[in-house]
Amino acid sequence: MLQQETIAEIVEKAIRTLALPDEPRQLYEPVGYMFSIGGKHLRPRLCLTTYGLFHDAVPQEVVWSALALETFHTFTLIHDDVMDRSATRRGNPTVHCKWDVNTAILSGDLMSILAYRYLAMGPADKLPALLKLFTDTAVGVCEGQQRDMDFERKPFITMEDYMKMIGQKTGVLLAAATCMGGILAGAPEAQCKALYDYGYRTGLAFQITDDYLDCFGDAKTFGKPIGGDIAENKKSWLLVEALRRAVSESDKKRIAELLALGDDRRAEKIAAMTQLYIDLGVRDAADAAILECHRSAVDALKQAGFTEQQVDCLREMAEKLLHREK
Amino acid sequence: MLQQETIAEIVEKAIRTLALPDEPRQLYEPVGYMFSIGGKHLRPRLCLTTYGLFHDAVPQEVVWSALALETFHTFTLIHDDVMDRSATRRGNPTVHCKWDVNTAILSGDLMSILAYRYLAMGPADKLPALLKLFTDTAVGVCEGQQRDMDFERKPFITMEDYMKMIGQKTGVLLAAATCMGGILAGAPEAQCKALYDYGYRTGLAFQITDDYLDCFGDAKTFGKPIGGDIAENKKSWLLVEALRRAVSESDKKRIAELLALGDDRRAEKIAAMTQLYIDLGVRDAADAAILECHRSAVDALKQAGFTEQQVDCLREMAEKLLHREK
Repeated sequence: MLQQETIAEIVEKAIRTLALPDEPRQLYEPVGYMFSIGGKHLRPRLCLTTYGLFHDAVPQEVVWSALALETFHTFTLIHDDVMDRSATRRGNPTVHCKWDVNTAILSGDLMSILAYRYLAMGPADKLPALLKLFTDTAVGVCEGQQRDMDFERKPFITMEDYMKMIGQKTGVLLAAATCMGGILAGAPEAQCKALYDYGYRTGLAFQITDDYLDCFGDAKTFGKPIGGDIAENKKSWLLVEALRRAVSESDKKRIAELLALGDDRRAEKIAAMTQLYIDLGVRDAADAAILECHRSAVDALKQAGFTEQQVDCLREMAEKLLHREK
Repeated sequence: MLQQETIAEIVEKAIRTLALPDEPRQLYEPVGYMFSIGGKHLRPRLCLTTYGLFHDAVPQEVVWSALALETFHTFTLIHDDVMDRSATRRGNPTVHCKWDVNTAILSGDLMSILAYRYLAMGPADKLPALLKLFTDTAVGVCEGQQRDMDFERKPFITMEDYMKMIGQKTGVLLAAATCMGGILAGAPEAQCKALYDYGYRTGLAFQITDDYLDCFGDAKTFGKPIGGDIAENKKSWLLVEALRRAVSESDKKRIAELLALGDDRRAEKIAAMTQLYIDLGVRDAADAAILECHRSAVDALKQAGFTEQQVDCLREMAEKLLHREK
């Protein structure tokens, strides 16, 4: 089994030493920039973690497959930032702000293609299975992004809608990561399926945690100002749950009033909505939902014939993800 | 060997009967729309033509591989239209005009992924070779689009720069199409390589023809107003060649004056530049360049062991492409 530190080092090194052409500059510079501003590299790490359940070393071709996941994810960030008009990403200017929208579109397109190039550099015998999984996943991510944008235009969405959306936007790519590790390792189909479910449910927990930290996290470790979702009326897990819990007329009215507050009263809006989340029990419910996703993620591994040691490794991985502060 | 009519029917039917999900509507509608507004389906037809040199029938999985080419090409059109701010495509509103820019970005992204999905539905044993070729090609197309955008900011570009740009923007994808047909048919490597070169050079001829028809074509059959490239000062083959041929100060001055004319004198600008192209011998030079590309495309097939009948088929295919009026 591989240690988390070893896996993190392999991923960092692979990204740091990635050789990109110099020309055309306008096309490749943003790609190098996006890789350089970091991120947690969660997806390749998850992939190598599940691969590492079965092997003690990682061949270079498996590293390429893992890198395909990070490259695809980073491509979606570039285009999402254009569509959401976001000015910063990981504390740095977004590509369309640092360069322009056309550059963000085209270098994003290139990055999605590079993801497939890295996938093609993986083990040839696994390629048909990997390409199908990767492509089905990528379609899901696009559908999730579309649903997310559709939600912003809808006055009300149900928790079921919300969970489906984050399942596509975040769940399927984490699921693909954990499943790919199994496929690359040559694990039996039942175990690959279990790893997929584990990754999917961990992805849900991860996304709810993200929404949670946007409101209840620490600005320094979170890497962006707290309360952004509230300020932008974003339909986060917290808001969807608050709307579900607000049954009295006074609570409904209070939420509507806060949603109507403009950016000139940003601090007041964030403070009041945060308090309301606590009063309505939304904060505690989020804690419980995250734990429940985590529990069901680990449950997915049962009866697939994993050793106790393998299950422990994956439980710890998920725990680390959920107890993150950023 | 397969007849052109049969191939055209297979491609039309495959596109017409493509089953796309209904939801999310905003994501899939533009994809269906782009497929419905047609086009020549040149790339899948080229692919099935070279496949048909070796076989008398086309299995469904080979049709999927061919469809991947059309889907990728159509994706690039959606994003190119956003970047170029084009309002119409094939006589219809572009996706970002009919919907909006975000829709064009995301449904374009989806379409690029669908291209890989269709590729994954091709023959599994050919997948490593096809995926590598397809991905290298896609990277080339992005680089070509970037060079094209860079050119618009440069005061002067050489014919060498121009040919390199159209080689990437158009040549490599036609080359991939003809080469893929060979790979899918199980042709020997030397023949696949020859088919690649044939496709690449045919692509150059095709692009020069496109620039030619934009100036000297017939508006009705060309499908868009004549002279658009001139009106927009686009660095077409004709303009690059005119700048190369203009050695006298008076010719240079005349071109500069015409380039400086605004859209309020559009008709005058188009008429005068067209005349100048004729006077400088640019029109005749374009005719000669197209023929030369065509000749060298067919030359590429020599000494690769093709039968006379196979070479004739490809010569005719290229001739039909170049004697098109649209």
